[in-house]
Amino acid sequence: MTIIESRVDSEIDILTLQLQQLIRVPSVSAKKQSTVMECAKLVSEIMIKSGIKSEILTFDDNSEQIPPIVYGEVRSKSNPNGKTILFYNHYDVQPPEPIELWDDDPFSGKIDGNFIFGRGASDDKGELITRIKAVEYFLKEVGDVPCNVKFIVEGEEEIGSSHLQEYLTKYRKKFHCDAVIWEFGYIDEHERPIISLGMKGLLCVELNVKCANADLHSSLAVLVENPAWRIVHALKTIRDENGTILIKNWHNDIRDFLPEELDCIKQEDFDISDFKKNYELTKIFNENDIEKIKKASVGGVTSNISGLLSGYIDEGSKTVLPSTAMAKLDFRLVPNMIPQKQFQLLREHLYKNGFKDIELKFLSGEPACRIPVDNEFVKLVESCAIEEYGKVVKSISSAGTGPMWYFNKILQCPCVSIGCTYKYSRIHSPNEFARIDLIKRTTNCIGNIIEKFGDSKK
Amino acid sequence: MTIIESRVDSEIDILTLQLQQLIRVPSVSAKKQSTVMECAKLVSEIMIKSGIKSEILTFDDNSEQIPPIVYGEVRSKSNPNGKTILFYNHYDVQPPEPIELWDDDPFSGKIDGNFIFGRGASDDKGELITRIKAVEYFLKEVGDVPCNVKFIVEGEEEIGSSHLQEYLTKYRKKFHCDAVIWEFGYIDEHERPIISLGMKGLLCVELNVKCANADLHSSLAVLVENPAWRIVHALKTIRDENGTILIKNWHNDIRDFLPEELDCIKQEDFDISDFKKNYELTKIFNENDIEKIKKASVGGVTSNISGLLSGYIDEGSKTVLPSTAMAKLDFRLVPNMIPQKQFQLLREHLYKNGFKDIELKFLSGEPACRIPVDNEFVKLVESCAIEEYGKVVKSISSAGTGPMWYFNKILQCPCVSIGCTYKYSRIHSPNEFARIDLIKRTTNCIGNIIEKFGDSKK
Repeated sequence: MTIIESRVDSEIDILTLQLQQLIRVPSVSAKKQSTVMECAKLVSEIMIKSGIKSEILTFDDNSEQIPPIVYGEVRSKSNPNGKTILFYNHYDVQPPEPIELWDDDPFSGKIDGNFIFGRGASDDKGELITRIKAVEYFLKEVGDVPCNVKFIVEGEEEIGSSHLQEYLTKYRKKFHCDAVIWEFGYIDEHERPIISLGMKGLLCVELNVKCANADLHSSLAVLVENPAWRIVHALKTIRDENGTILIKNWHNDIRDFLPEELDCIKQEDFDISDFKKNYELTKIFNENDIEKIKKASVGGVTSNISGLLSGYIDEGSKTVLPSTAMAKLDFRLVPNMIPQKQFQLLREHLYKNGFKDIELKFLSGEPACRIPVDNEFVKLVESCAIEEYGKVVKSISSAGTGPMWYFNKILQCPCVSIGCTYKYSRIHSPNEFARIDLIKRTTNCIGNIIEKFGDSKK
Repeated sequence: MTIIESRVDSEIDILTLQLQQLIRVPSVSAKKQSTVMECAKLVSEIMIKSGIKSEILTFDDNSEQIPPIVYGEVRSKSNPNGKTILFYNHYDVQPPEPIELWDDDPFSGKIDGNFIFGRGASDDKGELITRIKAVEYFLKEVGDVPCNVKFIVEGEEEIGSSHLQEYLTKYRKKFHCDAVIWEFGYIDEHERPIISLGMKGLLCVELNVKCANADLHSSLAVLVENPAWRIVHALKTIRDENGTILIKNWHNDIRDFLPEELDCIKQEDFDISDFKKNYELTKIFNENDIEKIKKASVGGVTSNISGLLSGYIDEGSKTVLPSTAMAKLDFRLVPNMIPQKQFQLLREHLYKNGFKDIELKFLSGEPACRIPVDNEFVKLVESCAIEEYGKVVKSISSAGTGPMWYFNKILQCPCVSIGCTYKYSRIHSPNEFARIDLIKRTTNCIGNIIEKFGDSKK
């Protein structure tokens, strides 16, 4: 029984109400909507209501375009010189498109039994609320927190945390802490929290080609090059049909798995049939090699086409030779790949393969990060998660990306993922949801981590 | 001096006003708008005002979705058993997209000096009005026409004339004629009308792939196939970087050029630098081989990507693994390729190359057609065009497509292209326009053809 457990139960309706409030402010950072700032203010208000000192940190007075960081802090009265835990979250969300595939408004916050729906329900507004509430319940129960607590809630996570590195550098002293709880954490199909100790890196680029000065009649295709064909022929040189990246020297900087990382991978499991069933897939890569699949999940690089556009895309046919074609690609990176360096390799690849006419744009880049498996804070989080859920899975890295590398480098402390996001909760997809039962259990688990961290030696 | 010449000059304002009226009814057949039917009625009204008997022919009482044919007829009083000329035109237009690239509303009909702007200004409302007016002016000047005149104005030309074959079969007797003036005709950069004697064929298809049941987080790309990559890898097997189609047996049925066709090609010219300048192109295929360029224009096959769509296409990045990808392709065909047979070759190609997961849809198909170079009606049109313009170019085929094959086969008579469309008038592109000076000259030329055809022996 944790200190906050009874409040987690009795105040769940207020928690879900505030989560609905958060979901209903569409904070799509990719679209630079004014509601992004509105959401930052709401987060700050909710913190203050919870007894957390909060302020809105801007990056630069002259750059109103850059979403602020919502900062929160509670100093322990009983243990002011003890350890400090920092919760890292974000209030921005992915674009809701394709909107027609949502059963309700993407920002409805609709509750249906154990489920709460909407863009950001899990990623990351659901995670954020569990942490704010764990602190609030502590303050209500005992009038104090057992360790110092800080919050960083950023507004650019979904667009590659473009300014987080600068924010961390600028506010390094303010953000000083001993450990970071990462912005998300998955719960797998067997109700086990996945304690994740790393993030892959990411490089997002856009390719654009222009051929003629306007869309032309397609009868001219006999003489005029088609930009969509240029994009197709450029793309096919980047990745083969089995998913292998064909760019020269692309894999050079990748560091091998450490022995303890390989041990960790061995202990993980992966339910292929469950995974396939959930996404209605007829096959996945390396289906007959479970070790390959597990290694790829935590340490495999990818080249993903996230967007493709040229010409006429409506109903029926239009015999047009498009003037432009566009492709968006994202590449997952692993330790020790440097996004800017990989971008140069891609640029050189396109040049050497005769695609100088393709304009290559760097959209964003983040390096990968992995926290050592045997770190003390990792063990603490693991024990708290076992107390709540009975069992855990430890993973050396998420398949996804976040700015963990910057935290680890600038604040010089371990970062651990633990959270309430059900593995199949459709984050980044239509009909994203959060499970209220997992929100409750994870709030409780976060309370336990705060409690145990207060006890741990400085 | 032709019979109608003075009226062509004095009534040009009424002509342009009626052309504006036609442009302002957006008759985009691809979108199945109700305005398609509205435009058919307007064409019929304009014919009746001009003294042409007109009726609206429907394909089938049960199929309201199919645009009707506007039929027009004037029987010669002085020569009722003489020859019959048939004008083939269409009242439907291409979609105006991308709309943001138009300087004005695509359906404005705005007049600026010698230019009249709007979708359909040249293709095909501009051409249609010259023919109606030539007949009207004859009736006004002499109270008769020297030969019988018929009009077929269809509403599905821009979507592959899907039902024209059936219309021609059903109304074969009504449409009986001795020669057809085709729906368009180009005027080149040296003010020479191009008398075109053929059309390429066309096969339009759509490729669709679905991988997962919804858009996924792109971190899953390590396990889940991406439909955009499937489309890219399928497309790259269809055409190489030089434009050559790689589908097995694709070129088998193509008939060689006849000696008289090769003569005709030799006499044509092609201004490479003018062409490149007009479309702001840095290069074209086979730039250093003018003979290849000329042969390709009239007799080359193509594979053109007219549309490409997958995933997130808005500003910035979204780390999404799309659930679907789509490509639209059009293939220009030449005599004696059969669209349905070529479609089967494409299907087999995709199957044999491992793309059974790609759904292949037949959108439309039309065979190619060429009228013999030495036909009598060709000579008559040529002499009339020389009288008006001083010089002509004779081309064995347009680079574009139309249902000439059906006319030639079902009505069993020659079809010749002669018209008022300036070569660079941006048909199918933003800011399409027609030149009023060419409309006047071509109306006069059409009048001359009617006059001479009335004199020619049955």
